[in-house]
Amino acid sequence: MKWPKTSLTERLHIRYPIIQAPMAGGLATPQLVAAVSNAGGLGSLGAGYMEPEEIRSTIREIRTLTDKPFAVNLLIPEPVTEDAEIIEYAYALLEPYYQELGLPTDDSSAANLTNLPNLHNAPNFKEQLAVAVEEKANALSFTFGAPNEKEIEALKEWGIPIIGTATHLLEAIVLEESGIDIVVAQGAEAGGHRGTFIGHYEQCLVGIMALIPVLVDHLSIPVVAAGGIMDGRGIVASLALGAAGVQMGTAFLACPENGTRPNYKAALQTGTEIATVLTRVFSGKFARGLHNRFIDELLENETDLPGYPIQNALTRNIRRAAAEQDRPEFMPLWAGQGCSLGADRPAGELIRAWVAQAEAIIRGDR
Amino acid sequence: MKWPKTSLTERLHIRYPIIQAPMAGGLATPQLVAAVSNAGGLGSLGAGYMEPEEIRSTIREIRTLTDKPFAVNLLIPEPVTEDAEIIEYAYALLEPYYQELGLPTDDSSAANLTNLPNLHNAPNFKEQLAVAVEEKANALSFTFGAPNEKEIEALKEWGIPIIGTATHLLEAIVLEESGIDIVVAQGAEAGGHRGTFIGHYEQCLVGIMALIPVLVDHLSIPVVAAGGIMDGRGIVASLALGAAGVQMGTAFLACPENGTRPNYKAALQTGTEIATVLTRVFSGKFARGLHNRFIDELLENETDLPGYPIQNALTRNIRRAAAEQDRPEFMPLWAGQGCSLGADRPAGELIRAWVAQAEAIIRGDR
Repeated sequence: MKWPKTSLTERLHIRYPIIQAPMAGGLATPQLVAAVSNAGGLGSLGAGYMEPEEIRSTIREIRTLTDKPFAVNLLIPEPVTEDAEIIEYAYALLEPYYQELGLPTDDSSAANLTNLPNLHNAPNFKEQLAVAVEEKANALSFTFGAPNEKEIEALKEWGIPIIGTATHLLEAIVLEESGIDIVVAQGAEAGGHRGTFIGHYEQCLVGIMALIPVLVDHLSIPVVAAGGIMDGRGIVASLALGAAGVQMGTAFLACPENGTRPNYKAALQTGTEIATVLTRVFSGKFARGLHNRFIDELLENETDLPGYPIQNALTRNIRRAAAEQDRPEFMPLWAGQGCSLGADRPAGELIRAWVAQAEAIIRGDR
Repeated sequence: MKWPKTSLTERLHIRYPIIQAPMAGGLATPQLVAAVSNAGGLGSLGAGYMEPEEIRSTIREIRTLTDKPFAVNLLIPEPVTEDAEIIEYAYALLEPYYQELGLPTDDSSAANLTNLPNLHNAPNFKEQLAVAVEEKANALSFTFGAPNEKEIEALKEWGIPIIGTATHLLEAIVLEESGIDIVVAQGAEAGGHRGTFIGHYEQCLVGIMALIPVLVDHLSIPVVAAGGIMDGRGIVASLALGAAGVQMGTAFLACPENGTRPNYKAALQTGTEIATVLTRVFSGKFARGLHNRFIDELLENETDLPGYPIQNALTRNIRRAAAEQDRPEFMPLWAGQGCSLGADRPAGELIRAWVAQAEAIIRGDR
């Protein structure tokens, strides 16, 4: 197989075909993004939840830490369904957690929450995109679909590579036909939110071993494997399957540069390959994370909770307080099925170790 | 990585580290088993549902077709829960299918079915095992756990390699500690029955990309990757992950030597990577197969159906008649997530093509 130069490294002007998964919500800090890019991979800023001006300042901060290319990841907006009754219901379920964490329930009562602008107003996608382009992001990656025709045209005019996320072949074909340059194939093993945008998430849990060859046989753009890849073994395996590179998230979760809280890291270290579950209790969208009390207790009501981004807004204060108070039982502990293979080492060191391991495997030394 | 000689080929005295998955129920015919072994892999007879004397005659038939090693696969017996009420309930759900297929419902009524010996008497495991040993099976593979201490001791005395099946690390450790020589790691991608014997199947759906490195890091016996592997790409990927070889089932389903019915093959060809579901409606145990009418219609009652082997016995006549009458909507169409990559070519030809493809990848020609 081709290594380390692939159609991915050529297109993105990077040394190794390794993309760091965006991991929105403060996990992928500017320090992590820069460390990955400095080591020859492509760092990614998960900017989906950020207001445009925060994206601007964060990109500028990353630029002070690296002169190498990095990507900015945005979330394609979806129609929001807002139903006061469902919100009241969800809030009633969540109230005990507000209380247990000592959060004021009067400020955040259901009636008040429905009026909070952040409940139904996610950051404006068009403005987010405009800032990323103005600040000359070296690549733009998208989750939950593709930008519209005009936006893609504009990005192409600016010469910015466009990365999409697919969980099955039909999504990948839709992305390719919309003009996307590179598709990240998210396997069932992957941690965090499922990128599924066509079909129900449950029918779209395809393992990397099957997903990559199927996509590669049908697409002409580079395919990047994501899900369960934790070291040089997973990198070589992905290339053997026909991928042009890998996207790794969980593998960077324990890095000192990461925004992962200490108790989150501790949970990762004791997590096993069967310790993760797919749940929508935190955000309204299905995502893979380590099993904890919050998930367990809300599991039976899971299908009745509001969708994204409503549920995400309803749990925001809980997630924040839980992180501040070191209460992992209430935090989303996103993790892929390979989590037990993670290591608490600087990102650059990890990448060098994976590259050395991949090269040994390719040479046949192992 | 080591290729084609690995700890697996050495242990099993085969040329290529490729095991054909047992596929009980008439899919893996003597012709298929022999063709795989003749081509340098390890054919496997799925003998779990066979009476001892049928195992004997089938082994003898395979010996007339090959002088190479092949394996016999048996199912470790589990405690059977028999509840007349649940059986009546299941039978009421199944009766319309008996009628639609023109099967006599009087002979197979719930009252009669509970009295049928095949409902609660699966073939005797000890006798199955004795015959496999007498007939000098070159390897024995087991699903749903490990044989007992005495049986393992006896197999070791006879020098017969023992292969177990695990869906997560704890199961693999239990198998290794019980004296198993080789562990097949069944990924979530795999078609057919889940081999899970510790924990609920749903919590044990780990993709090969995460499963193999985790097992390899903890075990000292060879690990074989199973699930979603459809050609030379999957073989090299598995070796890169640290596996000593692969087990492939779906990849052989469309072979002319296989017992797959024409309409089953046709369904495989139009199946996609998201066309399979995990269901227990056919046997009482969860298994991955192509979506069809029988699964769809019984899905909502799935959790209330009796366990294996009761449900398996209750649907036996339906499955048989559906196959004879060319009604794929009532047949279990077991298939892994890679099913769309299958090819209708003789098994030996497939193996030669995969080996050539694997060698090209390893050489770096692709």
